Amino acid sequence: MTRAYLVTVALFALAFSFSYAYDPSPLQDFCVALNNSSDSVVFFNGKVCKDPKLATADDFYFAGLNIAGNTENILGANFTPAIIPGLNTLGLIVGRGDFAPNGQAPPHIHPRASETIVVLEGTLYVGFVTSNPDNRLFTKVLNKGDVFVIPIGLIHFAFNVGKTNAVVIYSQSSQNPGVVVIANTIFGSNPPINPDVLTNAFQLEKNVVEHLQKIF
Amino acid sequence: MTRAYLVTVALFALAFSFSYAYDPSPLQDFCVALNNSSDSVVFFNGKVCKDPKLATADDFYFAGLNIAGNTENILGANFTPAIIPGLNTLGLIVGRGDFAPNGQAPPHIHPRASETIVVLEGTLYVGFVTSNPDNRLFTKVLNKGDVFVIPIGLIHFAFNVGKTNAVVIYSQSSQNPGVVVIANTIFGSNPPINPDVLTNAFQLEKNVVEHLQKIF
Amino acid sequence: MTRAYLVTVALFALAFSFSYAYDPSPLQDFCVALNNSSDSVVFFNGKVCKDPKLATADDFYFAGLNIAGNTENILGANFTPAIIPGLNTLGLIVGRGDFAPNGQAPPHIHPRASETIVVLEGTLYVGFVTSNPDNRLFTKVLNKGDVFVIPIGLIHFAFNVGKTNAVVIYSQSSQNPGVVVIANTIFGSNPPINPDVLTNAFQLEKNVVEHLQKIF
Amino acid sequence: MTRAYLVTVALFALAFSFSYAYDPSPLQDFCVALNNSSDSVVFFNGKVCKDPKLATADDFYFAGLNIAGNTENILGANFTPAIIPGLNTLGLIVGRGDFAPNGQAPPHIHPRASETIVVLEGTLYVGFVTSNPDNRLFTKVLNKGDVFVIPIGLIHFAFNVGKTNAVVIYSQSSQNPGVVVIANTIFGSNPPINPDVLTNAFQLEKNVVEHLQKIF
Amino acid sequence: MTRAYLVTVALFALAFSFSYAYDPSPLQDFCVALNNSSDSVVFFNGKVCKDPKLATADDFYFAGLNIAGNTENILGANFTPAIIPGLNTLGLIVGRGDFAPNGQAPPHIHPRASETIVVLEGTLYVGFVTSNPDNRLFTKVLNKGDVFVIPIGLIHFAFNVGKTNAVVIYSQSSQNPGVVVIANTIFGSNPPINPDVLTNAFQLEKNVVEHLQKIF
Amino acid sequence: MTRAYLVTVALFALAFSFSYAYDPSPLQDFCVALNNSSDSVVFFNGKVCKDPKLATADDFYFAGLNIAGNTENILGANFTPAIIPGLNTLGLIVGRGDFAPNGQAPPHIHPRASETIVVLEGTLYVGFVTSNPDNRLFTKVLNKGDVFVIPIGLIHFAFNVGKTNAVVIYSQSSQNPGVVVIANTIFGSNPPINPDVLTNAFQLEKNVVEHLQKIF
Repeated sequence: MTRAYLVTVALFALAFSFSYAYDPSPLQDFCVALNNSSDSVVFFNGKVCKDPKLATADDFYFAGLNIAGNTENILGANFTPAIIPGLNTLGLIVGRGDFAPNGQAPPHIHPRASETIVVLEGTLYVGFVTSNPDNRLFTKVLNKGDVFVIPIGLIHFAFNVGKTNAVVIYSQSSQNPGVVVIANTIFGSNPPINPDVLTNAFQLEKNVVEHLQKIF
Repeated sequence: MTRAYLVTVALFALAFSFSYAYDPSPLQDFCVALNNSSDSVVFFNGKVCKDPKLATADDFYFAGLNIAGNTENILGANFTPAIIPGLNTLGLIVGRGDFAPNGQAPPHIHPRASETIVVLEGTLYVGFVTSNPDNRLFTKVLNKGDVFVIPIGLIHFAFNVGKTNAVVIYSQSSQNPGVVVIANTIFGSNPPINPDVLTNAFQLEKNVVEHLQKIF
Repeated sequence: MTRAYLVTVALFALAFSFSYAYDPSPLQDFCVALNNSSDSVVFFNGKVCKDPKLATADDFYFAGLNIAGNTENILGANFTPAIIPGLNTLGLIVGRGDFAPNGQAPPHIHPRASETIVVLEGTLYVGFVTSNPDNRLFTKVLNKGDVFVIPIGLIHFAFNVGKTNAVVIYSQSSQNPGVVVIANTIFGSNPPINPDVLTNAFQLEKNVVEHLQKIF
Repeated sequence: MTRAYLVTVALFALAFSFSYAYDPSPLQDFCVALNNSSDSVVFFNGKVCKDPKLATADDFYFAGLNIAGNTENILGANFTPAIIPGLNTLGLIVGRGDFAPNGQAPPHIHPRASETIVVLEGTLYVGFVTSNPDNRLFTKVLNKGDVFVIPIGLIHFAFNVGKTNAVVIYSQSSQNPGVVVIANTIFGSNPPINPDVLTNAFQLEKNVVEHLQKIF
Repeated sequence: MTRAYLVTVALFALAFSFSYAYDPSPLQDFCVALNNSSDSVVFFNGKVCKDPKLATADDFYFAGLNIAGNTENILGANFTPAIIPGLNTLGLIVGRGDFAPNGQAPPHIHPRASETIVVLEGTLYVGFVTSNPDNRLFTKVLNKGDVFVIPIGLIHFAFNVGKTNAVVIYSQSSQNPGVVVIANTIFGSNPPINPDVLTNAFQLEKNVVEHLQKIF
Repeated sequence: MTRAYLVTVALFALAFSFSYAYDPSPLQDFCVALNNSSDSVVFFNGKVCKDPKLATADDFYFAGLNIAGNTENILGANFTPAIIPGLNTLGLIVGRGDFAPNGQAPPHIHPRASETIVVLEGTLYVGFVTSNPDNRLFTKVLNKGDVFVIPIGLIHFAFNVGKTNAVVIYSQSSQNPGVVVIANTIFGSNPPINPDVLTNAFQLEKNVVEHLQKIF
């Protein structure tokens, strides 16, 4: 079983709620998404909503962010977004992240949202890197009660440098931030990127690139 | 000491971080606010930023959301926003809410943000009311790990119906959501609203209105 | 017949044109709404439009703002929006307000628009209150030809303090401003808000709250 | 005295309030412009505001839309915008238009706003033309109480076809709609456009073009 | 065969890709338009997209901007937009313009986009005029490798003042800029604008106006 | 001399025009940036502009996109943006890219813009990868006259697979797209990212990671 597959599984809950949503200003009190899957029959820049007359409090409710996610995967981490149909059009999402010791959110970018991280338990080494040409690294080691901000579109990561599990509540400024995990996007794309591009770009031996493309 | 004064104090930390900020798309990697006070010498639709070359990781960092706020006030509740200069231009804010038993966030509106509430401890009765003409009430009793969504611009409230303190992490889709607490905006404005308007609007005896205007 | 019902009727014309529309930039010359009712079969963040080839001048036209609205209702006021399908996507609406002596637009909020009021006849006491913690009241007594501005999301009101009818033309910066009338949203919601929340928030005797919930 | 000069004078009040303002979402309760002139020392995409603590009700107030504008000019029309510093950041403006018999608002475009026209008195022939390739003309003859909508960015005009003065209240979905009057922009630019461009574009004799460039 | 017909044909390729699209932020990776024609069965502020799972690289691809457009038309110019379904929701379009000697893009406005022009071959006289009351003309004669910027909503033109064909690559900040060509919008609308309006606005003899309305 | 330094130099012209600008709707005809450097004394979400009365046609003009950039650098490529102060607030930028045989634009992301590429000469292998969990690769081999679209926020690359130089005109839907080159952001940040994070994320031997951090 390839790493790419495992990472995909580990990220699927995260990605699932991010399919084909949108963030304009809400232009009615609410617009509860008919469903959060991508099994829609009509696609446009957003989601079909249910008749507002049929909306209920349950459409704005989610239970279970107190439950630890399973971190027994290649990342040693798990992300549980609060998938709530009522968030449709509201430009916001919240979720829980769990990190086993040495577990991590590998370097990634959210193309459509800034993010805040609130640490509930444990110790995380977090950071982001600015764009070219400076590529400055901003990092902090976060403990319980600490908050860190990740600006939209910048590469960032989190790494559990503590001896215990780490738990965070993350918030993002979009209902559909999207996630581009660098390593498996670069080395695990389907189909693979021409190895010549990557050997050149990353200054790696071709056999190393091909090895990475195999495992991701 | 009037209730209005106490409520103002209780809400001041919340309001402090909400002065004269703004939420367009960030158009550089970040734009760290020079300060979060309203003591600026120049005012426009947003905030003056520090030279990006001088930004540090501390500008994106806040400590202390693990510390309970003091709920010994008229609301029996306390709100601690994570005041972070780096949030300037990023369209997001996060904070902690504490509720003593029977403590509450009285009916209020955020003019510039939708909100999510994640319950870390305790039991909260939360709800919002839709706009006219339906004025439908959507409510839930939330326990640990539950999440609820408040659409932008609608009246909502939270009430601790449990026997223990309740703690929440709230997130809002603006760096400057603003807060309009109905009771002390209506009855505690400075100067007071003409009582004839309120007696008529709320169908209250004039002496009741004037009493409310005294205490708020 | 309850007051809530009467207010609902008085506000219905106002609310009718406000169902499920939206305000992004128009991205074609126009997008004439198929209808302005909420009887749509598809719901999303906006409205279905008619084939632009079938649009006519009548889709951009409304007649009757010269006709006084009936103010024989609990508010002593009446609001007549110009319901025009061609306004769909254009971020603007205009209407007429009539106020009998002592008639009023009770304290309310438009979650999605700023507003201008132009007085054509009579004398109105108008005002708005800023958000917490200041809650400053800004008021003016307006006469014929006077204009006043209400910023988006703030509580405001208008009261006919003259001896004759007052007439205004109001404009709002959204096709769907929405209206949250404080009194009947707080006391007239369906179902009612738990009275404990309101007694605490408004410092009213429980029997007063329950009385208000009965009449609204 | 050239026609261009007269038109400029006739349009100046209209244009005056349109200098260098902007329309993002307001991100504080309000941001009252320090002044409405273009005599600012700092320029950016919007206006410098006064300290919000110093704002007064007068900043949101304008008097005089009941006063007829002087239509003794080349257009036979006059436009009086309600210049209100408090409109800064609120995305809305309102004004009065006066038309003598045969007076007109010549074909023009507002680059940054849609518009509604409410007729208070008289009879106006109004219309707009859609973009290429259809160039469909939509027109109506409006009488007292009629409303017409002009979508953003389309050429439109109004012509008093009645025997009496016509008066309208216009509203626009921007604090700074801008106005491009076709005839004096094309033929009255400073310096003039190369006549070869215009003879070719408008299929006019060169001497006709040069004559038009002289009078505009 | 009228000039209006020829201009319409000359502009049709340009206009074809401009029907009923929109420019909010993309809120998924992409939203490939099902088609670029206006033969949709559903209309709203944007376009129906294909199932993202079915998108292919061809949806983001266009061939042929190296091919000169046919300038044997009344304009002596031809515009070839790169019609790409994958541009839907991305707020950008690019195309090629060809100008025979003395060929031109007559004075026009793009209601929904700013524009850049890069000259690949030849010599163009380009310019734009600011809004009222200044109506300042900004012009340049562009040669190979020169770039010029046209702000959104302003009247602009390009004229081949060289002895050879001119070729440009133009880019616009909208997927659907729209084009309002002044001359055939004013004189070639369908139905025609009342000649009294135009004689008055353009200070032309009525027979000249009627002649222009015939040829456009 | 490290590769990171060379890449920085190669990207500097690209990055230079991207400092601290912004993309709201323009709210006046134009707002010409006082300068394009980052040597401003005031910083906010955008740029200070010059007095519009002092703007000239040169502020909207750039010369030299016909001149090939120097590709004798580590990328074998060079990017020349058209740095034009008048683009400030217009949401658009255009530039020229040169690629020597085997030259490339290594995998990178533009956090704030979508992009179109028009090939003027040569043969380029271009592609982008969708976000998680699919990570689908979309690629094309482009020849003269071909156009390809890159959606905002996705990793993309271009590689000259021909035997001759390749030349492109690129357009982006922001005045300040920003550029995050994956390899030198991940391995060349300043200071370096903790190697443990990268070994884990990229499944590379620690010595390989440290080697990469040395050369980037």
